[in-house]
Amino acid sequence: MKKLKLGVIGTGRIGKVHISTLAQNVPQAEVIAIADTNLDSANEVAKAFGIANVYSNYKDVITNPEVEAVVICSPTDTHAQYIIEVAKAGKHIFCEKPVDLSLQVIQGALNAVQKAGVKLMVGFNRRFDPNFLKIKQLVEESKIGDPHILKITSRDPAPPPAEYSAVSGGMFMDMTIHDFDMARYIVGSEVTEVFTNAAVLVDPEIGKAGDVDTAIITLTFANGAIGVIDNSRKAVYGYDQRVEIFGSKGMACADNNYPENHRYFAADGVHGSLPLNFFMERYLEAYANEMKIFCLAVINDQPLPVSGDDGLKSVAIALAAKKSYLEHRPVKLSEILSM
Amino acid sequence: MKKLKLGVIGTGRIGKVHISTLAQNVPQAEVIAIADTNLDSANEVAKAFGIANVYSNYKDVITNPEVEAVVICSPTDTHAQYIIEVAKAGKHIFCEKPVDLSLQVIQGALNAVQKAGVKLMVGFNRRFDPNFLKIKQLVEESKIGDPHILKITSRDPAPPPAEYSAVSGGMFMDMTIHDFDMARYIVGSEVTEVFTNAAVLVDPEIGKAGDVDTAIITLTFANGAIGVIDNSRKAVYGYDQRVEIFGSKGMACADNNYPENHRYFAADGVHGSLPLNFFMERYLEAYANEMKIFCLAVINDQPLPVSGDDGLKSVAIALAAKKSYLEHRPVKLSEILSM
Amino acid sequence: MKKLKLGVIGTGRIGKVHISTLAQNVPQAEVIAIADTNLDSANEVAKAFGIANVYSNYKDVITNPEVEAVVICSPTDTHAQYIIEVAKAGKHIFCEKPVDLSLQVIQGALNAVQKAGVKLMVGFNRRFDPNFLKIKQLVEESKIGDPHILKITSRDPAPPPAEYSAVSGGMFMDMTIHDFDMARYIVGSEVTEVFTNAAVLVDPEIGKAGDVDTAIITLTFANGAIGVIDNSRKAVYGYDQRVEIFGSKGMACADNNYPENHRYFAADGVHGSLPLNFFMERYLEAYANEMKIFCLAVINDQPLPVSGDDGLKSVAIALAAKKSYLEHRPVKLSEILSM
Amino acid sequence: MKKLKLGVIGTGRIGKVHISTLAQNVPQAEVIAIADTNLDSANEVAKAFGIANVYSNYKDVITNPEVEAVVICSPTDTHAQYIIEVAKAGKHIFCEKPVDLSLQVIQGALNAVQKAGVKLMVGFNRRFDPNFLKIKQLVEESKIGDPHILKITSRDPAPPPAEYSAVSGGMFMDMTIHDFDMARYIVGSEVTEVFTNAAVLVDPEIGKAGDVDTAIITLTFANGAIGVIDNSRKAVYGYDQRVEIFGSKGMACADNNYPENHRYFAADGVHGSLPLNFFMERYLEAYANEMKIFCLAVINDQPLPVSGDDGLKSVAIALAAKKSYLEHRPVKLSEILSM
Repeated sequence: MKKLKLGVIGTGRIGKVHISTLAQNVPQAEVIAIADTNLDSANEVAKAFGIANVYSNYKDVITNPEVEAVVICSPTDTHAQYIIEVAKAGKHIFCEKPVDLSLQVIQGALNAVQKAGVKLMVGFNRRFDPNFLKIKQLVEESKIGDPHILKITSRDPAPPPAEYSAVSGGMFMDMTIHDFDMARYIVGSEVTEVFTNAAVLVDPEIGKAGDVDTAIITLTFANGAIGVIDNSRKAVYGYDQRVEIFGSKGMACADNNYPENHRYFAADGVHGSLPLNFFMERYLEAYANEMKIFCLAVINDQPLPVSGDDGLKSVAIALAAKKSYLEHRPVKLSEILSM
Repeated sequence: MKKLKLGVIGTGRIGKVHISTLAQNVPQAEVIAIADTNLDSANEVAKAFGIANVYSNYKDVITNPEVEAVVICSPTDTHAQYIIEVAKAGKHIFCEKPVDLSLQVIQGALNAVQKAGVKLMVGFNRRFDPNFLKIKQLVEESKIGDPHILKITSRDPAPPPAEYSAVSGGMFMDMTIHDFDMARYIVGSEVTEVFTNAAVLVDPEIGKAGDVDTAIITLTFANGAIGVIDNSRKAVYGYDQRVEIFGSKGMACADNNYPENHRYFAADGVHGSLPLNFFMERYLEAYANEMKIFCLAVINDQPLPVSGDDGLKSVAIALAAKKSYLEHRPVKLSEILSM
Repeated sequence: MKKLKLGVIGTGRIGKVHISTLAQNVPQAEVIAIADTNLDSANEVAKAFGIANVYSNYKDVITNPEVEAVVICSPTDTHAQYIIEVAKAGKHIFCEKPVDLSLQVIQGALNAVQKAGVKLMVGFNRRFDPNFLKIKQLVEESKIGDPHILKITSRDPAPPPAEYSAVSGGMFMDMTIHDFDMARYIVGSEVTEVFTNAAVLVDPEIGKAGDVDTAIITLTFANGAIGVIDNSRKAVYGYDQRVEIFGSKGMACADNNYPENHRYFAADGVHGSLPLNFFMERYLEAYANEMKIFCLAVINDQPLPVSGDDGLKSVAIALAAKKSYLEHRPVKLSEILSM
Repeated sequence: MKKLKLGVIGTGRIGKVHISTLAQNVPQAEVIAIADTNLDSANEVAKAFGIANVYSNYKDVITNPEVEAVVICSPTDTHAQYIIEVAKAGKHIFCEKPVDLSLQVIQGALNAVQKAGVKLMVGFNRRFDPNFLKIKQLVEESKIGDPHILKITSRDPAPPPAEYSAVSGGMFMDMTIHDFDMARYIVGSEVTEVFTNAAVLVDPEIGKAGDVDTAIITLTFANGAIGVIDNSRKAVYGYDQRVEIFGSKGMACADNNYPENHRYFAADGVHGSLPLNFFMERYLEAYANEMKIFCLAVINDQPLPVSGDDGLKSVAIALAAKKSYLEHRPVKLSEILSM
C-alpha cells in the first residue's frame, strides 16, 4: 500500500488527536515528522507513536524532503503564515480551523495555495460525523424537499479559561465557527445575514474578557431558508451536539451520541447515561474519516471536500455574528465580505 | 356535587371543543345555554350534548339568570366587547385567545373586569398539557437552575386559508401567540425584546395576503435568559410541538405525542407512526384540564392560573414580533407597551 | 341517536370502570340499572353517574324490561350462572374475564348463549389498546411475514393480597390470562403446548397460598410459531406491558405508555418519568374502545370481536400453564381440552 | 512501553478480527507470528499488518521463542489440542469459543492449563461490550436488587450455510453459546436447568442438517432467578442483540447499536436506520476491550475475567439445551455435568 508521508506542526491537544488517528485508523498514512516549540511535548508524542523526526522548529517539518503533506495544528495566528510556507514548498496542506481571524490574511493564504497548485483542506471535522453525514445525505436525496428551517444546538461541557477568548477570537470564532460551517454544509447555500442575541450567563469573567458564553444566532440563507444556532459554553450534562433540518417534504434530526444505550427503571424514574462528554470521544469517527479522506484525496489526486473558501466563509460569518452582537442589529454578510 | 352553570358564546370549532370537554370530562360543570349567529350550528350542538337553551343572540346567554359563567368562543373582534358585557352582568369569564389585536382595547376590557370584580381566564390551553406542565415543574423545582436558553418548536400540519390572515391578525397573532405565552410561562420572566426572521416559504398566497408562514423569533427575557421560537404553517409529518429549557443545572425537553408507541423493524429501516396530527387530539387532555381548573376556581373562589394580563402580554409580544419583521430590527417590548 | 340501554351487575373496581366509561365515553350507551350485594356501593355509583335503578339483587337488573344488555362484573364464580340467566332472558352479555375456572362450566354457559341466540363478548380489553391494535394490524397486513417468535412482558406494579389467589384461581388465571388471550390474538393461531418455569420470588406468602409470583411461560402455536410470556407480580417501576412479534419479514414491538414524554438531563444522568402505573390509566382508551365496540355491535347486530370461545381458550391455556408448573413438563392443550 | 508478543493460529474471519484489533487498538500488543493451513490467506494478513513470521504449521507459532502468548482462532475441533500444546510450551492462551463440543475434552485441556500454570481466557467478547458491561455494573451495584427474570434476545442477520451445523455443533453450540455465557455473567449464578422450545422456521435445509434455526430457551438459575433466551438465525432487519434484567429493585435493559442516530419524519411516518448488521461492527469495541484486557492481564500477571471453567459451563448448557430439545423435557445441568 502506498502510504502518504505526513508532517505535523503542533503537538498540542488537536495535534495529538490527528497523530493518534493517523497512526491507528488511517493505514494509508504515515507521520514521519513532527514539530512543536515545546520539544518535550513533541518528543513524548514521537515516542508514543514511533515517529522518527522531531523538531522544535516547524520549518524543519516543511523542508524535510520526505514529507509530502503537512498538517497544521499550531496556534491560530500562525496558520496563514505556515500555509503560505508549505504551499511555496509545493506540499499539500491540512489546516485546523479557523484559518485566521482576518479575512484579508486568509485571502492571502488562499492566494498562495492557488498559485502553488497544492491542495488545502480546512479541519471542519464535524462534516464527517456519521450523524451529520446522514442528515446531509437526506438533504441531498431531496428527502427534506426545499429546506425551510435549520436548527443547530452546540453546547460545550465546560468553558475554556476566560483568557483564552483573547487568543481564540472569542466564542463565535473558536466554537460557533463549527456551527457556521455545519449550517452552510447542511443547507447547501450561503449565509447572507446574521442576527446575534448573546449573553454572559455562565461566568462573569468571560464577560470581563470581552466575550459571551451563551448565544442564539439567527441566520438567513441565499436560498431563502432561515436558521438558528444556540450555543452555551457550559452544559452540565455533557457535550450537546444536535442538528435538525425542516423542509417542504419532511424533517430530519440527529441526536447526541452516548457511551452505551442502556435504560434503568427504578422506583424513582427511568434513568440513562449522559451523552459522550468529550469532543474527542464524540467525534472520534469524524476525525478518523476526515484524515482518511484527506490522505486518500491527496494520494489519488482528487478534490478535497472542505475548501479554503469554506474556511474563509465560516470566519466571515463569525465576524458578522460578533458585529451583530456589538451593534445589536442584523448584519449582512456582504458588509463583512466587502470590507 | 355543586355544578357550575355555564353559557357558551360561539359554537364553531373551538366552541365545540369546550362544550364537549365540559360535558364529558368536567363533572363539576353544566352547560345550560349556548349562542351562535348560525343557529343551525348551535342547535346541532345543543342536541348532541343535551343543552336546554339555544340562542342566536349572544346577549341571551349573558342575561340568562341561571348562567354563572360565560365561555367566549366567538371571533376575535368580538372578545373585548363580550368580556365587558359579561363583566357588567357580574358573571365570570373564560375567553379564547387572543383577547383582541389592540392593546388599548384589551386594556379597556381588563379594566371592566377589574371594576366588576369578576374572574377572567384566557384560553392558553397548552399550559395545561402534561408535557409542558412537567417542564414547568422542573423549572419551578430549580432542577434547571437559572434558565439560560429556551427553545420552542411549534409547527402546524397545514396552513389556514390565506384570507384567514386578515381576520386573525396573521401568524404571530393566531399561532405564535401560544408560543409567546408558553415562553413567559416556562421561563417565568417577561419578554423584553424580540427579533423576527420570517419568510414566505410554504405558500406565496400567504405572502400576498401580507402574512408570513415560516419564522424564527429570538426573545430576550427580563431575567437575562434568551430564547427562540421556530414556526411553520406546514409540517407534512404532522403537528410539531416541542419545548426545551436549558439552564445552569440541567436541561429538560418535551417531545411530541404519538397515537401509539410501536416500532416496526423491516429490511428497509425502522419505522414508527407520525405524531398526533390535530390540535384537538394533541391537546385533548390540556383542554380538559383547562376547563376543569377554570370551573373549580370559580366554584371555590380561587385565583385563576391565566390572567387577563397574560392575555395582554402575549398580544404585545406578537405586535413586537410583527414590528420587528416589518422594520427588520430588534424591537423592545417597551416600545409596544408604551404606545 | 339510538342508545343501548344497559344494566351492570357488580359495582366493584372493574364495574366502576365500565360504568364510568359508558357514561363519559360511549355516547351510544346508557346505563339504566345496576346491582351490587353491597347496596351502599351501588347507590354511590348510581348517584355519581345519574343511574335511575339500583338493586341489591342482580336478578332485578336482568328482569328490568328496559335493559337490553347486561355487563357482568361480579366475582368470577358467579359469571357462568349470570350468563345463563341473562341469556335465558334474551339479552346480550358482556362478561369480565375469566368466564369461570372450569372448562365444563364455561362450556355450559356458552351452550346457553348459543341456544338463546344472544351475543356474548368477554372482557379482554387489551385487544383494544392502541399499541397492541397497531401490532395486530402489522401482522394482518403481512408486514411481519410468517410469525416466528412472540414475546409478551406483563408485570404488575404490586401483588394482590395473598389470599386473593384462592378466589382468583392464581396468577395464571387472574393475570396471565390476559397474556394468553393476547398471544392467540397477535399470532392469529391456537396455542398447542405450554411449558411453565415459575417461582415465588416476590413474597413467600404468595407461595404459602399455593400460588407463584414470577413466571416464564413458553408457548407453541398451531402455525409453528413459538412464544414466551414473562410475568411478575411486582415491578417497582410500574405497570410493564409490552409485546413483540418477530417474523420472516420483520419485527414489531410496542412499548409502555407514559404520563408525559419529557426527558431531564442533569449532571448525574438523563432521567424520565415512570410508565403509567395503574391499569385503569394504562388501558383507559382500551376500556373505552371495548365498550364502544360492544354497544355498537349490539345496536347494529354485528359480530363481536371477542367470542365466548376466546374466553374458554384462555382459561384452557391457564389450566395447562398451571399443570405444566405442577408437573414440571411441557403440557399439550389437547390434554386439557379433552378432559 | 512493554509490548506483549503474540502469535495467532488461524487467519480466518475471527483471526483477522483479532489481528486487526491488536494492531490498531491495543498498543500494548504486537503480533509477531501467525499460522494458517491456507498460507496465502496468512501471507495476505501478514502483509496488511506488517507481521514478520508467517507459517503454514501452527506448531511454528507455538515454538517461536519470542512468542509469549498464543491466540487460537482455528476450527473448534483443534482448540483443545492446541491449548494443551501451548500450555506445555509454557505460554499464555486466548482461545475462541467453544473450547470443544465435548466436556471431557475440555476438561482435559483445562487440566493441562492448570498443570502448566499458564493463563487461559475464552473468547466471550460480548462480556466486554459497553452496553452489557453497564447492565452487569448495575447488577453488581445492587441497583436491580435480587435478580428475578433475565431476558436475552439474540438474532443473527442471516444463517450460516446449512452444512456448517455439522461442524459447529449446531445453533446452540455456535450461536446460543454466547447467550449462555451472557446469562451466567449477568445473573451471576449458575444455570441449573434448561428447557428448549425450538423449531425450523427459517430454512428447511437447516432442519435436514439436523439443526434448528429458531428457539426459545428457558433457564433456571441456582439463585432462584429464571431466564429466557430467544434466538433466530435470520432477522431481516439486522443483528439483534438485547439484554434485560428484572429484579426486586428495578429493571435494566440494553438496546441494539445503530450506525448513527438520526430520525427522518416524512408524510408517511417516522423512519430511522437499521441496527448495525455485522457482528464485527456491533462488537468492535468489545473485541478491542477483550484483547486489551487479555494482554494487560498477561503483562501484569493478573487474573483473567473469563476462565476455562466459563468455557466449559457454556458448552454444558448448550448440551443441555440440545438434549432438552431432543427429549422435549426440562433437563438439569447436573445430568450433563455428571456424564
